[in-house]
Amino acid sequence: MKATARETFRVPSGPVDLSAIDTAGRPIGPKDKTDAARAMGELDARLDARQEALYAEGTAGGTRAVLLVLQGMDTSGKGGVISHVVGMVNPQGLHIASFKRPTPEELSHDFLWRIRKQVPTPGRIGVFDRSHYEDVLVARVDSLVEESVWQARYGQITAFEKELSEQGVTVLKCMLHISPQEQAERLGARLDDPQKRWKYNPGDIDSREKWPAYQEAYAAALERCDSDVAPWFVIPSDRKWYRNWAIAALLAETLDDLAPVFPAPDYDVEEERARLKASVV
Amino acid sequence: MKATARETFRVPSGPVDLSAIDTAGRPIGPKDKTDAARAMGELDARLDARQEALYAEGTAGGTRAVLLVLQGMDTSGKGGVISHVVGMVNPQGLHIASFKRPTPEELSHDFLWRIRKQVPTPGRIGVFDRSHYEDVLVARVDSLVEESVWQARYGQITAFEKELSEQGVTVLKCMLHISPQEQAERLGARLDDPQKRWKYNPGDIDSREKWPAYQEAYAAALERCDSDVAPWFVIPSDRKWYRNWAIAALLAETLDDLAPVFPAPDYDVEEERARLKASVV
Repeated sequence: MKATARETFRVPSGPVDLSAIDTAGRPIGPKDKTDAARAMGELDARLDARQEALYAEGTAGGTRAVLLVLQGMDTSGKGGVISHVVGMVNPQGLHIASFKRPTPEELSHDFLWRIRKQVPTPGRIGVFDRSHYEDVLVARVDSLVEESVWQARYGQITAFEKELSEQGVTVLKCMLHISPQEQAERLGARLDDPQKRWKYNPGDIDSREKWPAYQEAYAAALERCDSDVAPWFVIPSDRKWYRNWAIAALLAETLDDLAPVFPAPDYDVEEERARLKASVV
Repeated sequence: MKATARETFRVPSGPVDLSAIDTAGRPIGPKDKTDAARAMGELDARLDARQEALYAEGTAGGTRAVLLVLQGMDTSGKGGVISHVVGMVNPQGLHIASFKRPTPEELSHDFLWRIRKQVPTPGRIGVFDRSHYEDVLVARVDSLVEESVWQARYGQITAFEKELSEQGVTVLKCMLHISPQEQAERLGARLDDPQKRWKYNPGDIDSREKWPAYQEAYAAALERCDSDVAPWFVIPSDRKWYRNWAIAALLAETLDDLAPVFPAPDYDVEEERARLKASVV
């Protein structure tokens, strides 16, 4: 029996060593771009059908939703996943939230305040482009808060995600894992192409220079906040087409497991057929 | 010179007679589904490129946005346009708002209160699935408010849309124009298919029975709220593929006219290249 994407990419339990996970790996699935394009066609149809049923379920009192959390170093492909994977499903059923540097108002609240406001409502697929994990990543690396504060957040995050799961939100968290060499190429490409320069930020180099500290912070987040109700996945992301395929496969498997069903009508079908027939316009 | 979609579908000035506009017309563009599929491929690429530039502009202090308002009788295809046309662009740059029956809180405010909260921010393409026009459509047909109240709304809407235009939002409003026969077929199809029954609502027949009153209310809205800064377009919508093509073409022309440009970097490219080179990880 073939391994699933959920099994393959799940962060190993126990101490996490990101350097042991190949950023260019292709452990399962397509071996090249052509294979991947074919596979994406099938995944597209599967995602569309499942998402429509989930949405329909949500209109009829269903409580289930999906939340895809995307994290990764600059250029790792969060935006690419939104465009190429999330973009495959009907935008009506999506809720995308991008978390940037917190505003003064956001900072005056608990770190989960702004996050809670963006949790997808029933029937939706929510996508977080960065997330509450920034509060144990940049906050830890740059000492934006005291250590006791960020240390407490791992438990707070786990409790929050458990609560989400209990209210019907299936959470899946993806770390887009790239090598520093790949990042250098992508940053270089952004500087070279006038149509990509807007994506570049001098701060990207500042973060890049803290690569080991970030990898350590990621490892801690993955280790301490992985759970069966809100699992962490590490996605080899040096190849964009493989990253996209892997996340599409994860999403499709997740929706398959949910197996949403189109709701039964809350009206009498025969009666409505008669009303329709009688309605002469 | 070929007529544009903006010229072709713009509501004629003066008194509006919807019965004079063919719901199955194909005045310009593709003549069949195959032609349309080819045309959509080209429009997709055009929309993608323009939308990315508009989004980029918005990240760099630009103030421009686009707002596509979708109105039409039940089954006219508002959801289909969102899935098939709006779904072509990167979801990160979209803001979709569906306006359902107002909540008690919404009703306690001015009718534009909930609308203003959903105006797209700079760089975005906003889509309204139903809109403030419901407040001069169902509100008028079902006498939900006194006549003096809905009569005043045409002017209020025109002023609001002028304000949007002045703040940088390009508004385009599409009425999806279908025949009552086509609606009967589509409602019947929803009743027949267990996967579509969730889209059917017994209230749809109640609205259908008020067809002439709705057409009259639409005509008044189109006549009184059409303006060069927020034009109304009437989209022949009996053929789904034609409707989709027409709106994609309108959107593409609108974005072409805006001609958004990728912003110049606010950093020194050479300096950043040097920093990138020096950053050994």
